[in-house]
Amino acid sequence: MEKVSVKQLFRNTEEFISKEVSICGWVRTERMSKAFGFIELNDGSFFKNIQVVFNDELSNFEEISKLSISSSIIVEGKVVEAPNAKQPFEIHATNIIIEGLSDSDYPLQKKRHSLEFLRSIAHLRPRSNTFSAVFRIRSLAAYAIHKFFQERGFVYVHSPIITGSDCEGAGEMFKLTTLDLTDIPRNEEGKIDFSHDFFGKETNLTVSGQLSAEAYALSFKNVYTFGPTFRAENSNTARHAAEFWMIEPEMAFADLIDYMDVAEDMVKYIISYVMENAPEEMEFFNSFIDKGLFDRLNNVVNSEFARITYTEAVDLLKKSGETFQYPVEWGIDLQTEHERYITEKIFKKPVFVTDYPKDIKAFYMRLNDDNKTVAAADLLVPGVGEIIGGSQREERLDILEKRIAEMGLKKEDYWWYLELRKYGTTKHAGYGLGFERIIMYMTGISNIRDVIPFPRTTGSAEF
Amino acid sequence: MEKVSVKQLFRNTEEFISKEVSICGWVRTERMSKAFGFIELNDGSFFKNIQVVFNDELSNFEEISKLSISSSIIVEGKVVEAPNAKQPFEIHATNIIIEGLSDSDYPLQKKRHSLEFLRSIAHLRPRSNTFSAVFRIRSLAAYAIHKFFQERGFVYVHSPIITGSDCEGAGEMFKLTTLDLTDIPRNEEGKIDFSHDFFGKETNLTVSGQLSAEAYALSFKNVYTFGPTFRAENSNTARHAAEFWMIEPEMAFADLIDYMDVAEDMVKYIISYVMENAPEEMEFFNSFIDKGLFDRLNNVVNSEFARITYTEAVDLLKKSGETFQYPVEWGIDLQTEHERYITEKIFKKPVFVTDYPKDIKAFYMRLNDDNKTVAAADLLVPGVGEIIGGSQREERLDILEKRIAEMGLKKEDYWWYLELRKYGTTKHAGYGLGFERIIMYMTGISNIRDVIPFPRTTGSAEF
Repeated sequence: MEKVSVKQLFRNTEEFISKEVSICGWVRTERMSKAFGFIELNDGSFFKNIQVVFNDELSNFEEISKLSISSSIIVEGKVVEAPNAKQPFEIHATNIIIEGLSDSDYPLQKKRHSLEFLRSIAHLRPRSNTFSAVFRIRSLAAYAIHKFFQERGFVYVHSPIITGSDCEGAGEMFKLTTLDLTDIPRNEEGKIDFSHDFFGKETNLTVSGQLSAEAYALSFKNVYTFGPTFRAENSNTARHAAEFWMIEPEMAFADLIDYMDVAEDMVKYIISYVMENAPEEMEFFNSFIDKGLFDRLNNVVNSEFARITYTEAVDLLKKSGETFQYPVEWGIDLQTEHERYITEKIFKKPVFVTDYPKDIKAFYMRLNDDNKTVAAADLLVPGVGEIIGGSQREERLDILEKRIAEMGLKKEDYWWYLELRKYGTTKHAGYGLGFERIIMYMTGISNIRDVIPFPRTTGSAEF
Repeated sequence: MEKVSVKQLFRNTEEFISKEVSICGWVRTERMSKAFGFIELNDGSFFKNIQVVFNDELSNFEEISKLSISSSIIVEGKVVEAPNAKQPFEIHATNIIIEGLSDSDYPLQKKRHSLEFLRSIAHLRPRSNTFSAVFRIRSLAAYAIHKFFQERGFVYVHSPIITGSDCEGAGEMFKLTTLDLTDIPRNEEGKIDFSHDFFGKETNLTVSGQLSAEAYALSFKNVYTFGPTFRAENSNTARHAAEFWMIEPEMAFADLIDYMDVAEDMVKYIISYVMENAPEEMEFFNSFIDKGLFDRLNNVVNSEFARITYTEAVDLLKKSGETFQYPVEWGIDLQTEHERYITEKIFKKPVFVTDYPKDIKAFYMRLNDDNKTVAAADLLVPGVGEIIGGSQREERLDILEKRIAEMGLKKEDYWWYLELRKYGTTKHAGYGLGFERIIMYMTGISNIRDVIPFPRTTGSAEF
């Protein structure tokens, strides 16, 4: 008897009709009707449940008829067409083995639960419709990203998580130590003696793999990272987590235009891949989580993204007549309200804004000839605002050293990064995509805590 | 003019013969012959270099003729057949643009360097033949793993890196904090007051994603993790790093046999994928790093892995007449010398050793009916010894609680893990594969520091 998944049965129904199969999963609901019973069974492979019909010919009918929600069972039976039922087929059970009954205090009973409550049972919430869908989408999206880059010959680089430098320049860091915190060793000057620490010096958790990725791009031309990054920022919002995954592609012999071309292709590819491979989940999100979802995603996939400079964007915002909470002036960092106005009201599609003032951007971004702006570009999308940030990198040693000095940073901390500009430097560009951001965008889920299996946020590292 | 990679030219030579192309990369060598010059150019996309021929018709012939090693250039020219040369074709340059000259103190000059020296220039070493090959293999192997599991419907889970528990039970942990180490807050009892720390409690870096993966397997049936894990163990060996990547698949409704079946398929799949997609790199490793490599890998791919119990293994070792450094007795943890003897001398192919004494294995492994052994299995491979460890997990709540108590662990620390056994428990199994271990196995590289882009080991977190 063939062991099959619910997904296989739904995707290749024809092939299985009238066949005996074995299927296993967890009971979502059960209802009884005299000598018959109906179980909605879910095995996590698919959004939908499969209906299992059983009758009192089963030797353990009594037991089966009282299954609690989320009990695990193995069903053997025949796949039968059911043209009038909700699903086009069902399983007529010839044998049902109970693997594990679920206690009656199972917290995920069949009723609506708040997302807050579900977070408190993060080990069980993927058994609900919503989270089951979210985390299958997350998995598919991750694979789509690998597939996109691998098909284009990009080399996947595992940039280090533990970093000996605190100069990645992207935010507050977590310190890492094996020192005994109750008795921290001090040197003769009374300062902490990190020579006793595991790495013999201060270490932190990475906030970005970009600098490492640049080194690899200058060897392999096209590379990408995809790994966890960390921010110890005390921002208790729906969009920030202390631990999240980033994708950071980096391309040598590439400029700002090349980056925008690749990023645009990538965003369209991920969305298309997920919509094609998880239509039922996406249908659910569009119907129950965010009614405008399909319109928004189709608009992204079918648009040619707009490209305007920061200076043009500022002009458009000033001419718009709109009153913003933060007034618009050349030189300000664009706020979400500005970004959304540009992409939602002015262009009604994704927009790359390029060439930002150098003072609001990082030291490694390439200085434009105007000496005022840098070759950076952020991708703004309707419904969210910024979803990708990137730039051409400063490949000229002298200018990079000057920028490092201007920013009050220490040249020695960047010795190897600077050497990349000494030994066969070349124009190069890259960007960062927050993985959770794109999952939120594709599902309509509005809190980052609900797209991470076990989220870590200010004050919370449960499970 | 089409921009192409060196790999595209080698893989689809026919298509490009007589065409004008643009190609960019770094100069590996240059030699001059009167009015002609020859450049070996590498762009990181491929193991081999492409030969670029240029002559004094180029306006910048003087400059081009003095290119230093690792200078970056863009070449425009015609692809021409070269039937008598080392490569079947070469590029006749019509234009060469210098992107960046390399300083004369470039440390990776054309001579043999020690691996130790190359580690000190981790930002440049991927420009050498060996490391260029290693890190392309690493990227391909990572993709092969995703492909293998995704094609089988496994859900990719990002298990958390920061953990609020120190009870994952797999080794020494790194502490994580945002407290000011020079002035650590204390509570009234004089103990460290972690309520002021970022997460409001003690946190560490994960040593294993298994417990999280189990929660997800009990929702999705088949899942896998692929992420960084950490050990703060002071072991300065060629096989241990403080930061490494692990793959941890977990399958519900699966037993020890199911795990062994999947693991065997996976190992064969990864090796086959890499050998098929990087034949030049693998040829290089087989010729210059490890002359027995192909024999060993082909043996793995073409063997049916043996499966014996620990008890049988101990008997075989005792009967072998071999003198081991560590004497063999039932109850001991098998040492590498034993493992290698079993797989290399006795079976001459990969071997799963199953059903280890419970006292040498973790609390979560399923207790066998003999009450002495657990349903664990390690995969031993010729040349290395253990490469995969896994087990069926204890799915019975009462026995699991008893094992936790026996091991002196606290039940409260495992509340959610125990709940998985209360709400629809089912037999399940999983395993862990150290990603670097399999890269070392497939390349013949013997030090883990040489298969990680920027390795972190005791006393070392450079770059």
